[in-house]
Amino acid sequence: MHIQPSASYSLTIRIEHPRIPGTVARVLTRIADAGAGIGAIDLVKTQVDIAWRDFTVECTSVEHAHQVLDAISSMEGIKIRQWSDRTFLIHLGGKIEIKNRTPVKTRDDLSMAYTPGVGRVCMAVHHDRDKAWALTIKKNMIAVVSDGTAVLGLGDIGPEAAMPVMEGKAMLFKEFGDVDAFPICLNTKDPDEIVNIVKAISPGFGGINLEDISAPRCFYIEDKLKEELDIPVFHDDQHGTAVVVAAALINACKLTGKKIEDMKVVVCGVGAAGVACTKMLMTLGITHFVGCDRKGIIYEGRDGIGDNFAKQWYATHTNREKVHGTIHEAMNGADLFLGLSGPGLITIDDVKKMNKDPFVFAMSNPVPEIMPEECWGHVAVMATGRSDYPNQINNVLCFPGIFRGALDARASCINEEMKHAAAKAIAGCIPDEHIGPDYIIPSVFDKNVKERVAKAVAQAARKTKVARVGKMHDSVEELTHV
Amino acid sequence: MHIQPSASYSLTIRIEHPRIPGTVARVLTRIADAGAGIGAIDLVKTQVDIAWRDFTVECTSVEHAHQVLDAISSMEGIKIRQWSDRTFLIHLGGKIEIKNRTPVKTRDDLSMAYTPGVGRVCMAVHHDRDKAWALTIKKNMIAVVSDGTAVLGLGDIGPEAAMPVMEGKAMLFKEFGDVDAFPICLNTKDPDEIVNIVKAISPGFGGINLEDISAPRCFYIEDKLKEELDIPVFHDDQHGTAVVVAAALINACKLTGKKIEDMKVVVCGVGAAGVACTKMLMTLGITHFVGCDRKGIIYEGRDGIGDNFAKQWYATHTNREKVHGTIHEAMNGADLFLGLSGPGLITIDDVKKMNKDPFVFAMSNPVPEIMPEECWGHVAVMATGRSDYPNQINNVLCFPGIFRGALDARASCINEEMKHAAAKAIAGCIPDEHIGPDYIIPSVFDKNVKERVAKAVAQAARKTKVARVGKMHDSVEELTHV
Repeated sequence: MHIQPSASYSLTIRIEHPRIPGTVARVLTRIADAGAGIGAIDLVKTQVDIAWRDFTVECTSVEHAHQVLDAISSMEGIKIRQWSDRTFLIHLGGKIEIKNRTPVKTRDDLSMAYTPGVGRVCMAVHHDRDKAWALTIKKNMIAVVSDGTAVLGLGDIGPEAAMPVMEGKAMLFKEFGDVDAFPICLNTKDPDEIVNIVKAISPGFGGINLEDISAPRCFYIEDKLKEELDIPVFHDDQHGTAVVVAAALINACKLTGKKIEDMKVVVCGVGAAGVACTKMLMTLGITHFVGCDRKGIIYEGRDGIGDNFAKQWYATHTNREKVHGTIHEAMNGADLFLGLSGPGLITIDDVKKMNKDPFVFAMSNPVPEIMPEECWGHVAVMATGRSDYPNQINNVLCFPGIFRGALDARASCINEEMKHAAAKAIAGCIPDEHIGPDYIIPSVFDKNVKERVAKAVAQAARKTKVARVGKMHDSVEELTHV
Repeated sequence: MHIQPSASYSLTIRIEHPRIPGTVARVLTRIADAGAGIGAIDLVKTQVDIAWRDFTVECTSVEHAHQVLDAISSMEGIKIRQWSDRTFLIHLGGKIEIKNRTPVKTRDDLSMAYTPGVGRVCMAVHHDRDKAWALTIKKNMIAVVSDGTAVLGLGDIGPEAAMPVMEGKAMLFKEFGDVDAFPICLNTKDPDEIVNIVKAISPGFGGINLEDISAPRCFYIEDKLKEELDIPVFHDDQHGTAVVVAAALINACKLTGKKIEDMKVVVCGVGAAGVACTKMLMTLGITHFVGCDRKGIIYEGRDGIGDNFAKQWYATHTNREKVHGTIHEAMNGADLFLGLSGPGLITIDDVKKMNKDPFVFAMSNPVPEIMPEECWGHVAVMATGRSDYPNQINNVLCFPGIFRGALDARASCINEEMKHAAAKAIAGCIPDEHIGPDYIIPSVFDKNVKERVAKAVAQAARKTKVARVGKMHDSVEELTHV
């Protein structure tokens, strides 16, 4: 399979070269021959006969990066003076920081933001706890909580190693939702301890985003916290994915005229996301699901199913015909293939067994369950989790806006209606007449998404009476006496 | 006692007044007659015969503010259109926010700061946990942890109500130490649970600043955490105060020629700060302490002492002569009075009983144990916790720099040597020839303090072998290959 060179494997290479016409072209040709892409070329300095330049080079892997470096160093007259891995460079010192929202440059500033003035603000919150939503960072602050047990596809790598992902998540919250988010990576895997810790740290937060916690612990932790906290608790790996899948499906149905409730869905990969997507699609009216794992179709009574919370749920709630067999057999007559598992698990022959105008959402990342190139011509809609193909199903379309809306409404939870509203809002970002096989889902950089999702979610919160804005004294108006 | 109008009780009042010469003067006179101070006067808009202006007015209390408003409204032809409390206004939405240190504006940004690029960074940390100090926010992030049980002088007001103080603390860390700090207010008072929570959340932090936790729980929590964590744990209410008191004492001794080790010290208020100050002064060589509480002098065997951890420690380690009596008796022949208790607890007659050239550090805030005006002429040095008198003993001189130094050295703790180094560095910010009765301690806005303290603390960390910088791969150089 061809892998594109990408920024995530990019280097900045400082090269010293003679100032002879054609030299830069020679270097670029060598880089291209080595299979790498080229970005910026910056002149660092020159002497009479020598120049130094920084080349930004995109590779496909760490090994490839070293091959490219070797290829350049072996050139006559060319010297690599230094090089650095750009992905590591941007991580130096972490990716987020704290910023003061008001200045503390003078004694007067100090006496209002800190002692003695702050004491009156403390007492105001003490007398009316709801004022924390107005007078503290709770108004706009989410905790991104992980125990590092299921980080990306990397598994249980521990809380320190999970930090770069959680910091990245916090960046996306800020950039795409104007939500402040702080990463909390926990040095414990005990579900009850995690529940207690999150409860204990919750006073300063307006919501909890659970992230990369392994199943089935994630279900227990989320359910318990939802029960015990009066702020939204959202496991993005489950519900974020489910919301965006639902949005994609809504538009795919608009495109093809398929009726959503008539669809037969094959779900490959029955972990946290698989179960959440299934539940979400059930609320859209779909009843016909077949789930598969490594061992094939999941049915009630299959050996070992009972040990796994997610699979047991799946066996009980889907596949009422108790079909047995491999994933390849499951594909017969399916309308939607939903892949949340691993690379290359289905073939084009499986796709050909699907109903007319099938949808393939192959979301394993970076390598999908089946590559889009193979499906072209055989499917009505193809979607993946990748940014380099059309129809990227990316959680970032959901979580910033859904929390923005929840915070704007001071919602006590994120309920089914709010998730539905989010899915419909995401789908609605593409006008019907623009929906096409390659455009069922908006770009992550579409600035409309956040606003539409936030608005729809806040509205759904008010409609379902979980919104608390207006009940709290929380505005400039409240503090401004007329 | 006269209380100065201050920014911490300031209002912005929008006044509509006729455009008749002398009107603004009339308003200002009325404000002055009401005992309030005046700050900015901003013209908002004008019509032919009417003007609207915003007056910033400083009062002494909430009641006083209302008196001032009444005084203005009762003026002929003058209307108050709106007013707001400036201290509350600056708290709206909280005082800190999250800022992204690198942009996420393009797909390339996303692929480096988040998936897929971030995966390689995670694995680098997974394989070498120390790399978290280089590649995550741990490098510069402190948790400001409180349970809200002893907030300022306000007592046990709960975690939500403690947030404004902890946010303020985070602001000071950033402004005065360039340290990122995040407030964590805990919804539990159980010391063991607090210890477990702080341990669990520690992977993403480079240090823990405990704040406003009531005694004796704060001693237990701090000791346990120090034992179990390999990052600095610092209870600022104790050690920050102790360091700045030590700094003030060093310079007061320089000024008067008193020998520090010969001093007799009366400590009024034997809570967390009192014990910490005593321990710190002991390490400077002082042996002669008498502690007092509401009931008088603390001595071994005094009724009820055994129930209180701090007082028991005090009884065991000080007052070897087992003096009994009131605080007024304790003052006989003292060289330093250290007040960490409440307003007006000693009199000028007590001060007169002290040794020649006595030092009075009356740090109860806002109202000291004795007002400076009373002491003038009877003491060699007078210090308070207030910003409106000379010699303000303020923790902000210590905690930003001490954590800056600890983080710079990647210190595993903040030990006695580092605290000493901080105290000496603070004292050393004033050149010997500039030390005077009104200038034994630098201003909190003295930019030298942070740098000197940080440098001295990092050096002490290296000297005592608790520094880990250099042992870790944590610099641009490490990531730049030559």
